[in-house]
Amino acid sequence: MLADEIRGCKAKDAERYAQELRDRLLETVREHGGHLSSNLGTVELTLALYAVFDFPKDKLIFDVGHQSYAHKLLTGRDLSDLRQRGGTSGFPDPEESEYDAFAAGHSGTSVAAGLGMCAARDLRGEQYKVVSFIGDASLGNGTALEAVFSSEKKPEDFVVVLNDNGMSIDKNHSALYRSISKMTAKRRYRTFNSFLSRTFKETGAFGRKLRRIKYTLKGWFNKNDFFERCGFKYIGPVNGHDLHELIEVLTDIRKLHEPVILHAVTIKGRGYEAAEAEPARFHGVRRNFADGENSFSVALGRLMCERAASDPALVAVTAAMTDGVGLAEFAEKFPQRLFDAGICEESAVTMAAGMAKGGLVPVVCIYSTFLQRAYDQIVHDVCLQNLPVIFCIDRAGFVGADGKTHQGLLELSALRAVPNLSLFAPKDCAELADVFDYARSKGTPCAIRYPNGYAPNLGSRQKIGDYYLWETLSDGDGVVVLASGARAVSRALEAKKKSGVDCKVINCRTVKPLDERVLREIAGKKILTFEEGYLCGGFGAAVAEYYASCAQPVRLKIMGAENKFVPHATAEEQARDCRLTAEDLARKIQAFAAQE
Amino acid sequence: MLADEIRGCKAKDAERYAQELRDRLLETVREHGGHLSSNLGTVELTLALYAVFDFPKDKLIFDVGHQSYAHKLLTGRDLSDLRQRGGTSGFPDPEESEYDAFAAGHSGTSVAAGLGMCAARDLRGEQYKVVSFIGDASLGNGTALEAVFSSEKKPEDFVVVLNDNGMSIDKNHSALYRSISKMTAKRRYRTFNSFLSRTFKETGAFGRKLRRIKYTLKGWFNKNDFFERCGFKYIGPVNGHDLHELIEVLTDIRKLHEPVILHAVTIKGRGYEAAEAEPARFHGVRRNFADGENSFSVALGRLMCERAASDPALVAVTAAMTDGVGLAEFAEKFPQRLFDAGICEESAVTMAAGMAKGGLVPVVCIYSTFLQRAYDQIVHDVCLQNLPVIFCIDRAGFVGADGKTHQGLLELSALRAVPNLSLFAPKDCAELADVFDYARSKGTPCAIRYPNGYAPNLGSRQKIGDYYLWETLSDGDGVVVLASGARAVSRALEAKKKSGVDCKVINCRTVKPLDERVLREIAGKKILTFEEGYLCGGFGAAVAEYYASCAQPVRLKIMGAENKFVPHATAEEQARDCRLTAEDLARKIQAFAAQE
Repeated sequence: MLADEIRGCKAKDAERYAQELRDRLLETVREHGGHLSSNLGTVELTLALYAVFDFPKDKLIFDVGHQSYAHKLLTGRDLSDLRQRGGTSGFPDPEESEYDAFAAGHSGTSVAAGLGMCAARDLRGEQYKVVSFIGDASLGNGTALEAVFSSEKKPEDFVVVLNDNGMSIDKNHSALYRSISKMTAKRRYRTFNSFLSRTFKETGAFGRKLRRIKYTLKGWFNKNDFFERCGFKYIGPVNGHDLHELIEVLTDIRKLHEPVILHAVTIKGRGYEAAEAEPARFHGVRRNFADGENSFSVALGRLMCERAASDPALVAVTAAMTDGVGLAEFAEKFPQRLFDAGICEESAVTMAAGMAKGGLVPVVCIYSTFLQRAYDQIVHDVCLQNLPVIFCIDRAGFVGADGKTHQGLLELSALRAVPNLSLFAPKDCAELADVFDYARSKGTPCAIRYPNGYAPNLGSRQKIGDYYLWETLSDGDGVVVLASGARAVSRALEAKKKSGVDCKVINCRTVKPLDERVLREIAGKKILTFEEGYLCGGFGAAVAEYYASCAQPVRLKIMGAENKFVPHATAEEQARDCRLTAEDLARKIQAFAAQE
Repeated sequence: MLADEIRGCKAKDAERYAQELRDRLLETVREHGGHLSSNLGTVELTLALYAVFDFPKDKLIFDVGHQSYAHKLLTGRDLSDLRQRGGTSGFPDPEESEYDAFAAGHSGTSVAAGLGMCAARDLRGEQYKVVSFIGDASLGNGTALEAVFSSEKKPEDFVVVLNDNGMSIDKNHSALYRSISKMTAKRRYRTFNSFLSRTFKETGAFGRKLRRIKYTLKGWFNKNDFFERCGFKYIGPVNGHDLHELIEVLTDIRKLHEPVILHAVTIKGRGYEAAEAEPARFHGVRRNFADGENSFSVALGRLMCERAASDPALVAVTAAMTDGVGLAEFAEKFPQRLFDAGICEESAVTMAAGMAKGGLVPVVCIYSTFLQRAYDQIVHDVCLQNLPVIFCIDRAGFVGADGKTHQGLLELSALRAVPNLSLFAPKDCAELADVFDYARSKGTPCAIRYPNGYAPNLGSRQKIGDYYLWETLSDGDGVVVLASGARAVSRALEAKKKSGVDCKVINCRTVKPLDERVLREIAGKKILTFEEGYLCGGFGAAVAEYYASCAQPVRLKIMGAENKFVPHATAEEQARDCRLTAEDLARKIQAFAAQE
């Protein structure tokens, strides 16, 4: 394994590997898609950590984990099957390798996880180093800040590597960033740094002493007491692409036994010009670096631009995902009305509640998986006050290559029980507009969920309204299929054809409230619910609940995802693995129709 | 209204009100219970704010809101019915008064809400001041930190009043606290402060100039650049009990139009000796200042002490609630094995995940309502990695006087869909121990929910185990009552007697997994589920889901709380209002039994 070769190696040797790793990263991401800029930016940091530390005995905890590809390459994963079904995950996963000390995918967890691991180590009397590897944007997340500020005494043998590339997924303009790195981006720092490097270039014991002086000087010069107050010895900033410097300083840190924060300045996309120039564009890319395209996100972006033009109360709130949720054009047209909170889902939602109290109608655009972070804020700040906030939940359902940590299977179950919140799942982009307008007209908290990828336009029979919450898309006498969500409805129509059963297909575009009028009408029929989400607590459960709460015995069958984490694959493969394809539904329809 | 009298009044006049307010606070809390220390500590700050600002045109946003009693007294609420059914809420509630600008109950929301309100005001071209009132402990919460660091430019006419009483609910030992107030607790500060006050005691324009010099000097002396970096003009520290000083400085701040943070030092429990001496004990108290007693919390505390003695892997994690969850004795006996994260539920849970990865078995003791804050961490850090973390969820079900913001009605629905997580609801304290041991033996994520207050011991027929997930407590031939949770089971036994129906009562102490063996056995009977939680997505929904997922038509009726926020009252009254008493159940049993 490469990791073994690199342990204890000199910077000169490590440099050979750096180029090799970069080439393989570029090749891999070109072939499979994935995170590019962040991985190119952390090649040297990863190599230096492996040169100095003794992983997996020492523990390396990635924050988010989208920058772990070099680490994966060094630890025996060849990435030829990256993000593919049965292949290597795009995020750290302890089930995949003992070198992946802690799973990740969401932002801000590495410092708290590292503190926990140190506590376990110290209580059990074990000896190893814990290294948390976090980017500057993730550090602004509430979970990370809580951990950084948790105590003025931090555990020994705990190293936080701050990978400071001066940007979030979009540009980082936070006050935190200003606090930690007002110096680093400046030319003055670079000049000073190269002066120090030239002046104190020595090896051996004398070199170590000189280096200590150098970092003390750096510390003074940068007056960075932010981390010192939090119980860390602050070291840096260092050039995150200079393997000589990195290996030197990490070797010293390894001997220190103190809690240390190493502040490394890196360039996102380093080594690939196009990515260096446009790191955000190359943050997460598709095969051959094609731009991602999602019809619902695009539709939402257009809709927001249109509606905002005539509706001055509408504003958009995102959490470092302006492009991802389709708001790039809105950001250009209405810069004063777009609020990007950074990777801070919690404060984003509470801020939206404040805006709503102040007379605006905030549209919070966020991925299903990240919305989990703001669960209490949705309950306690938005819904408790019954405020007109519209949540546009993107990437609901199977998300494909991002896998387990990013699935949008949970939000229906979690949100369904929140009082005052209405839940919608439009069948296509045209209906997204109808549902949006309906939600806007309600003046109460509403959430609209839709998947990524393309969605065919299915035509409309009946616009959503108070009376027509649901829509019968296809008439029939046999089984009644209640399908909720774009993918489910489109598969239900397909399944009707495949099954040969004359079933009725209903587009259940509201999950809460249910269309009780329809439920009463069909109570005597065989009813089959179908959705892309966990069966546990989801739309089908709501239907079962409805009949059980009025003690009405019905012939009801519900279909949804089994309650387990679903790993990376394409969204279609995930649907197949969870037996939620049109074919699976067609078989269920046939079997149900055949029952006495 | 007092608020009108106080607006524009002089410090000397305000001082008269201060004593009056204190007397009424003491009297009120003695009579009704509630938060004492925090309210006594903020009398002068509240008065000074009302003397200077023009509420409700200006907006006053309380963080947590447990310190809002003086504000309530000033704005026409007499508190004679505090925390009683139909009476005044113990927390700010816009439905109660237009002076309550934003609802609260949980920690850390006021800064983000304030930022949102300022954004709305500025976009709409309105003119008012927004004042966020936050304690030092709440400031360490992730939502608050995200908002404080959100941008280096903060809105104008935004005032954050930092009520620094140097302690959380328990003692605050966070690094944040060190960052913001290393000076204030020291005698040196007091001396310096009184010197400044004496030296610069002048009024009029000259006085204002002098005061500005004074605060500049204070700023230098305290070198507090923490908030300046975050875009606030930092003013302070000031004596939060000196009405002269407070009114002076707030008058200046009001004219400034800048984003300002006013750092006020207060003494928790001020003016009531017993509370000053033991502020934590008088944080939240019952009538006549009796200590709170909760049999499950007490039982958990004892159990933890017992088990920890023989099980070195067990550690406890809390979020500023060591006493509340019953761990005071554990904290004394095993100080190295208790981790209090402060009001930081998110990092507490992620830290627990790190501990579990490191070989410990963390028991995270937290109230149901606050666990909502850590929803994503439960999913993404604990359950995704299938780690042996045990969540002890206290205050599940109706919580009584704390009301809407603190109800424990949601966690079953939210947690039930999280893969790998088992959910338990023991019927009494004896069973808590069995369930705990069973959870410990599983080595996977487990959550155990139990209510506050007393729970009668119901006796045991069958200890929990893999085969006996549920327990038949009372045999019978008629309706089968599936009751889950301590209150529900005890009411079900009572309802059986009251109803006169020979029903079978089953103690459903696992909500996930369900006891499918039992469900298959009883499928032909009339089945009635009963629980204290939202019907939407809860235990009964799980049973409905089970039968619907295997398309088994059953005669099933589910009972649970209607999906709305339940205001303050006693827990018994709340059960009555939601029609979940033993009588309600008995009637349902009778009606169900009578059905064909």
